[in-house]
Amino acid sequence: MDPEAVAKAFVEHYYRTFDSNRASLGGLYQDASMLTFEGDKIQGAAAIVSKLTSLPFQQCAHAISTVDCQPSGPAGGMLVFVSGSLQLAGEQHALKFSQMFQLMPTPQGSFYVLNDIFRLNYA
Amino acid sequence: MDPEAVAKAFVEHYYRTFDSNRASLGGLYQDASMLTFEGDKIQGAAAIVSKLTSLPFQQCAHAISTVDCQPSGPAGGMLVFVSGSLQLAGEQHALKFSQMFQLMPTPQGSFYVLNDIFRLNYA
Repeated sequence: MDPEAVAKAFVEHYYRTFDSNRASLGGLYQDASMLTFEGDKIQGAAAIVSKLTSLPFQQCAHAISTVDCQPSGPAGGMLVFVSGSLQLAGEQHALKFSQMFQLMPTPQGSFYVLNDIFRLNYA
Repeated sequence: MDPEAVAKAFVEHYYRTFDSNRASLGGLYQDASMLTFEGDKIQGAAAIVSKLTSLPFQQCAHAISTVDCQPSGPAGGMLVFVSGSLQLAGEQHALKFSQMFQLMPTPQGSFYVLNDIFRLNYA
């Protein structure tokens, strides 16, 4: 599978999971993983899930606009850069966002998220 | 110097150089460096400078809104995520953008850009 396809599949899986069962995103992170969410820094899968599940909205739907990826270093990592919009239930306008991930390979042939930085694009 | 300060200093230096003498950005890239600019993939310092200096505008001014950073792996790399706006000469409205860099340390104690992904935030 080429890197572009891996990145696209990851992104689709990530936001589908976020929108349907946010708590199960924990499986994509490990203890060394870091999330910076609107400037808040959180480390470790458990703390990251706790942050994501405590965001002040329940139902949401992500729509992806662009996915860019680049290889990252000799360990087989991948940088993935996403732009898109986030529709919250009951809100009229979707929020634009940008997010980057560094994915690292697992021994099982899959990937986990080592780095994750999320920012809303304020107009 | 703490990582946040390094990231902020890099970002200020990068955009100041971009806005004053774009051709000299080449010193921040190496042969392994990759740039993805609005989906176009370019590799190597020379090709990256060629791309940046051939963008269809001359005078510009970047304004930085946010800078987030995270350590990236055991080799001392750093991920830097920037949001900001780009004012082109003669244009009424600034363009919002998001950009990420992976910085890697040099033997001289400085950093070079290994990965660079740029996207305008379309409204």
